[in-house]
Amino acid sequence: MSALKCHLTLFVLASSVLAGCAGASASPPPQCPPTLQGEPAAAVAPAVATQAPQVEAAPALSSWVEGPTRKAIEDFVKKVTDPQSPDLIPPAERIAVFDNDGTLWSEQPVYVQVAFVLDRVKALAPEHPEWKHKQPFKAALEGDLKAVMAGGIEGFLKLVLATHAGVNAEAFDEIVREWLATARHPKYDKPYTELTYAPMVELLQYLRAHGFKTFIVSGGGIEFMRPWTELAYGIPPEQVVGSRIKSKWENGTLRRLSEVGFVDDGAGKPVGIYEHIGRHPVFAAGNSDGDLEMLQYTKTRRGPSFALLVHHTDGERETAYGRESHVGKLDKALDAAPKDGFVVVDMKQDWKHVFAFQR
Amino acid sequence: MSALKCHLTLFVLASSVLAGCAGASASPPPQCPPTLQGEPAAAVAPAVATQAPQVEAAPALSSWVEGPTRKAIEDFVKKVTDPQSPDLIPPAERIAVFDNDGTLWSEQPVYVQVAFVLDRVKALAPEHPEWKHKQPFKAALEGDLKAVMAGGIEGFLKLVLATHAGVNAEAFDEIVREWLATARHPKYDKPYTELTYAPMVELLQYLRAHGFKTFIVSGGGIEFMRPWTELAYGIPPEQVVGSRIKSKWENGTLRRLSEVGFVDDGAGKPVGIYEHIGRHPVFAAGNSDGDLEMLQYTKTRRGPSFALLVHHTDGERETAYGRESHVGKLDKALDAAPKDGFVVVDMKQDWKHVFAFQR
Repeated sequence: MSALKCHLTLFVLASSVLAGCAGASASPPPQCPPTLQGEPAAAVAPAVATQAPQVEAAPALSSWVEGPTRKAIEDFVKKVTDPQSPDLIPPAERIAVFDNDGTLWSEQPVYVQVAFVLDRVKALAPEHPEWKHKQPFKAALEGDLKAVMAGGIEGFLKLVLATHAGVNAEAFDEIVREWLATARHPKYDKPYTELTYAPMVELLQYLRAHGFKTFIVSGGGIEFMRPWTELAYGIPPEQVVGSRIKSKWENGTLRRLSEVGFVDDGAGKPVGIYEHIGRHPVFAAGNSDGDLEMLQYTKTRRGPSFALLVHHTDGERETAYGRESHVGKLDKALDAAPKDGFVVVDMKQDWKHVFAFQR
Repeated sequence: MSALKCHLTLFVLASSVLAGCAGASASPPPQCPPTLQGEPAAAVAPAVATQAPQVEAAPALSSWVEGPTRKAIEDFVKKVTDPQSPDLIPPAERIAVFDNDGTLWSEQPVYVQVAFVLDRVKALAPEHPEWKHKQPFKAALEGDLKAVMAGGIEGFLKLVLATHAGVNAEAFDEIVREWLATARHPKYDKPYTELTYAPMVELLQYLRAHGFKTFIVSGGGIEFMRPWTELAYGIPPEQVVGSRIKSKWENGTLRRLSEVGFVDDGAGKPVGIYEHIGRHPVFAAGNSDGDLEMLQYTKTRRGPSFALLVHHTDGERETAYGRESHVGKLDKALDAAPKDGFVVVDMKQDWKHVFAFQR
């Protein structure tokens, strides 16, 4: 259970930061499903997500400062895709794996899925009058995150299972879509799907234009991600790897159970890649210690490989965090980067802007 | 554990039929990895397997008799892919799932993976002198399948775990490749990878040419299939869904453990599809009662769907089996076909030949 405990510890500790954001819950009136409003054409994932590879109109890494990090990426991609190169990798093997939280979209002040859990507890409360008197539900309803944390991992797991199970597959998918359409980030007051990192969305498109198949490999919930990653990133559901609860086929439907199936974090990420993809990644990107094993696994490839580590150094355009952070802690992996051959992205130095709306 | 017991019961009962084939073990000298020798160009999967969709040179279902079954397939594909059709399905949603054993390749006289297990026990025996005196290993080494069966499910599971665990991921992949290169089918005396059904390989190519993404969803071992399905079927590793043992990332490698992770059979197939693919299939093909839930799940799709059930009626060119068979038992699903809307393939009537070498 240690990977699970670690993952949930992060969740619980992270929730403490939400204390100042208790008011930012989903507003009631339903709106249109999230779109990429505000993103310029070059950064928009195809409206009908096609199956890779498509040679998209030669996208450049135009949100990246022309410096050593951008050059390292471009040189590597050229090295493994140029037909004349001795290091050419066949297209079928060009697998790129990306963490999601903190690598592709914002995870501050807290994981988006944690905001979802707390909003869902509030939404389900009318069906559970007993929650007013029962921890940790009482604490979650009151937005009292200290009290939520006092319930520890077991307590937070009760919140997760209460809000992620007990419905069938289609119903959960609808719940996630509706929440994403109405929820707003407490700092930027935008739908969470607009808080993707423009330079990373470009990187995904750039890799696909060079014959890579792009996957998400995240500690977040797989069915929390699948409704929107195709639109936001061009990554279809079958290319999303994540944590899961168990489910069961009965009476002609897929029922989601109150039982953890798999935690796709830390040492779980190479396992998730092995089980879901079955190929050794060529390119990997992460941002925290939970991505260390995925990056190390990628670097054990016999032949060229590239591991990118995104360091949140930009307190002005986003949030600066790392070694001391409960959410997306980056400590061990940053120390390992030189020896293990990770290319570190300094967000402040290497990106012209963080979010598309900052262009 | 009931899905596992059911799956293993099939394995154990099926092994009894191997009694007459105890001599057909893998010959020692290593040879080249399996290729599609003997398959005419039209049926050969691309040498460098590309990522779907590719418009391959308009493949036809030329191994299929021009009759109602072939027409049903062609009409359906036209209905959901013709841009003028009111039932048009966007390419990203065109998911096709195929069982493997008995649907895409031969499973008689026994599942190929069972032949692998028994050969591996013999290959590993020198490292385990104690097996000479320990059941069910003793029975497996003597080719005494009655005695193997006497060990029941728990006994056979010991054989499976002994031959599928205790090595790392790369080593197991090599073991499978080597075995496939040298093992021969006891009846046809050919590599097992030449015992794919030519009409079904064409069907895969036909679907892909019309923008479908083709997946395997099998009760067989996922890492037993991944080394060869790209070459044999054009289905890459990341599009193979199957049963798994557990694995663990440690000391810079993926170690395979002696513990069952997931059984992708029967009611497990909709779960495997939900977890791995995350899209509702449009087209499904199976051949036995273990595929019933997968076919039923496909038919619950809101919108057009197609479920194909392959019935082994051809005692001359293959083996006729179904209701009474231990391997690939087809009983409940055949009865359900009319009511549940499955299109049944009569192999004897509907196929011009079964294997490519019979052209």
